[in-house]
Amino acid sequence: MPNNFYLGIIGVGGVGNAFLEQLGKIPFPPSLVLLARSSRTLLAPLPEYSPSIPISKWEQAIQNDFLIQRGSLDPHEIAEYLAAAPGPAILVDNTSDLELARAYPLFLRRGISIVTPNKKGFSGEIGLWNDIFTSATEGNALVYHQCTVGGTLPVLSTLRDLVATGDQIISIEGVLSGTLSLLLGTYMPGSGDSKAKWSSLVSHAREAGETEPDPRDDLNGLDFARKLTIIARVIGLDINGPDEFPVESLIPAELRSLPSNGKGIEQFMSELPAFDFRMDEARDAAIKQDKVLRYVGSIDVPTRSIKVGLKQVDKGSPLAGLVGSQFLSVYTKRYSETPLILQGGGGGGEITAMGLMADLLKVMGRLR
Amino acid sequence: MPNNFYLGIIGVGGVGNAFLEQLGKIPFPPSLVLLARSSRTLLAPLPEYSPSIPISKWEQAIQNDFLIQRGSLDPHEIAEYLAAAPGPAILVDNTSDLELARAYPLFLRRGISIVTPNKKGFSGEIGLWNDIFTSATEGNALVYHQCTVGGTLPVLSTLRDLVATGDQIISIEGVLSGTLSLLLGTYMPGSGDSKAKWSSLVSHAREAGETEPDPRDDLNGLDFARKLTIIARVIGLDINGPDEFPVESLIPAELRSLPSNGKGIEQFMSELPAFDFRMDEARDAAIKQDKVLRYVGSIDVPTRSIKVGLKQVDKGSPLAGLVGSQFLSVYTKRYSETPLILQGGGGGGEITAMGLMADLLKVMGRLR
Repeated sequence: MPNNFYLGIIGVGGVGNAFLEQLGKIPFPPSLVLLARSSRTLLAPLPEYSPSIPISKWEQAIQNDFLIQRGSLDPHEIAEYLAAAPGPAILVDNTSDLELARAYPLFLRRGISIVTPNKKGFSGEIGLWNDIFTSATEGNALVYHQCTVGGTLPVLSTLRDLVATGDQIISIEGVLSGTLSLLLGTYMPGSGDSKAKWSSLVSHAREAGETEPDPRDDLNGLDFARKLTIIARVIGLDINGPDEFPVESLIPAELRSLPSNGKGIEQFMSELPAFDFRMDEARDAAIKQDKVLRYVGSIDVPTRSIKVGLKQVDKGSPLAGLVGSQFLSVYTKRYSETPLILQGGGGGGEITAMGLMADLLKVMGRLR
Repeated sequence: MPNNFYLGIIGVGGVGNAFLEQLGKIPFPPSLVLLARSSRTLLAPLPEYSPSIPISKWEQAIQNDFLIQRGSLDPHEIAEYLAAAPGPAILVDNTSDLELARAYPLFLRRGISIVTPNKKGFSGEIGLWNDIFTSATEGNALVYHQCTVGGTLPVLSTLRDLVATGDQIISIEGVLSGTLSLLLGTYMPGSGDSKAKWSSLVSHAREAGETEPDPRDDLNGLDFARKLTIIARVIGLDINGPDEFPVESLIPAELRSLPSNGKGIEQFMSELPAFDFRMDEARDAAIKQDKVLRYVGSIDVPTRSIKVGLKQVDKGSPLAGLVGSQFLSVYTKRYSETPLILQGGGGGGEITAMGLMADLLKVMGRLR
C-alpha cells in the first residue's frame, strides 16, 4: 500500500492516544498532516504538506519549528486544508462532538473520507444521516464508523453484508453497553441470584473506571439507544433517533433533576442507595419467573418496534451468561433457525482504537 | 458502483446456483461473461464481451445463438479470455477442485481477482498459499475467501483486522463444522445427557441432507482441519496443512479401509452401529466429569499447538450450548479477559453464497 494518504486527526483523548500509538506501528502509515486537540492545531507546512507530524513523537513535535502551530480551526478551514492535500485525505474524528459531526457532509463533498467512533452524526436527526451518505457518494469519499457500535465487534459490517446480499433482517436483540452488561451480570449472575447491592456495584464500577466519568451517562441508557438507532438505520429503518422509541432509564425518577456537574454526580451517588429496593424488586420478579435480569435492546423489523430496557431473559441463554461483554443476535430470513451471534469484551480505549484502525486500513485499501 | 466488472463463474452446484440467484438481485451486477460447469463453458462473444450472459436466465441462454458455446477450458484459456476483458475481471470458483486452485497464481498475476469458498488452495501446501498472495500483489488483484471458514460468519476478516491493527492472537477455540456441531449437540445436549444412539443420529442427519453425501467426509474431521489450517495461516502460523497436527477421526479405525464409493458408504452406515459403544464411552467419561462432549478445534499460538478432536467442555459454556451452529472464540492481548466470540448457524448453499456475494461486493468496491 503506497504511503500517499493524508491524515487529519481531531481529538487526542483516551481513544485518540491509543489510536496514535497503533498508527505508529503499522507498516505503511499515512502522512499525519493535521492534529487538533482542544484549542491547538498542529499542521504540516504548505504547499508540500511535508514534513508530516511524527506519529510517535507528536508531543515533542509541538516544539518543532518546521510545523505550523495554530489555534482551533473551524470545519471550513480544516476542509480547506485537507482537500488541497496532494493525495486522498482522511479525517479521523475522535471527539463526541455533534457540531463537528454536522460538518461531515462538508468534508465528504470535498472528497475527504471520514473514520470515526463519534456516534452523534449517525444517531440524531435522520436528515444528517442521509446528508452524510449522499455527500459521500457525491464527493467519491468514504465514511466508516464501524466502532460507533460494539467496539471492534464487526456489528455494522456484518449487518451491511446481510442487507447488501439480499437477506432480510427479522429481529435483533443485543446488549450494546459493556458497562450495563458488567453491572447487570454482577448484580444477577446467570448461574443464580446474588445478594449484591446495586448502588455499591455502580460505585465500585465508577471507581474502577468502568463507567463514564458521570455514571448517569451509562445508566440513562441513551448511549445504548444511540447505538441501537445506528443499527436500525443500517438495516433500513429510517427512524429519527432515540426520542422515537422507549428507553428505560436506570436513574430513579426522583434523581433525574440533579445537575450534570461534579456536585450533581456526588449527590446522585450518595442518594442512589435509597433506591436500591427498586432494582431488588425487578430482580425478585425475575427470580420468581426463574429468569435472569438483563438490560437489553431489541428491534423487531416487521412491526418496526424498537426498545431498550430491563428484560427477564432465560437462564442458560447467551444473554444470561454476559458479564461485561457486548452481544448481538440477529434472526434473518437466512438465519431463521439459529441466530447469527457476535459477542465480545466491550469498548475501552485500546479496543475502540483498534476498530478505528481497522476502518482506516479499509478506507486506505479502497482509496488506493 | 459502475457496471464495468467482468465476471467468470466456474461451478454451478448448490452454492453456485444460490449465488447466481443472489447475483440476479443486486442493484449493479457485473457483466457475467464466462460460466463453466462440468464439461461446458458459456462465453460472451469477443471482442466486445457483449452481450453478457443473462444472470437469471443462464439456463435458457444455453440456447442463445449470440453466446459462444465451448467445451471445458483449461485455466490458461480462461485466464486469457478474462484478462483481455475491457474492465477489471473477477473469477468466482465454486468448485472444490485442487487443480483449479493451483491455477489461482496464474489468474492473479494477470490481474484477475478471485472470490471463492474452495478451501483447497488455502489449506494444502504452504507454498501455494504464499504463491497465491504474492501473485495477487504482483498482479494488483484481490483474493477473497471469507467463506472458506465459518460460512458467512466474519471469521477471517475479524482475525485479519486484529492482526493488521497490531493485536496479538493468544488462542483460538472453535467448532467449524455445522454437521459435527449438530451431531454432538444432539448426541449430548448442553442441558444434560440423552440416550441418543450415535449411529442413528448420523443416519438421520444423512437422510435430512445435513451431512456430505458421504458422511465420512464430515466424520473424518478433515474439512474442519482444513478450516483450522486457514485460520492458523491468517494469524501468521506457517503450517503446512492438516498433516502437521493431530486430527481425531470419528470413523472407527476398523472401518477406515472401506472404499469411498457408494457401496463403501452403505457398508459404513450398516457397520457403524457396532461401534456406538466407543462414542458412548466418551460420553460416559464426560458425564462422570460433569462435562459435555464436543468436537472442537484449537490453536495455542505461543506453543504453536493445533489440534482437532473430541473434548470435554464445561456445562453452561457457549460450546456446550451449540446444536448445529458454528462457533469461534478468540483470546488476544486486547481481548484477554473475555474472548471475542462469533457464532452462527453453519453453512448451507444459501448462506455460503451470501458470504461469496459479500466478498464479491467488497472486491468490486475496492477495484472501482
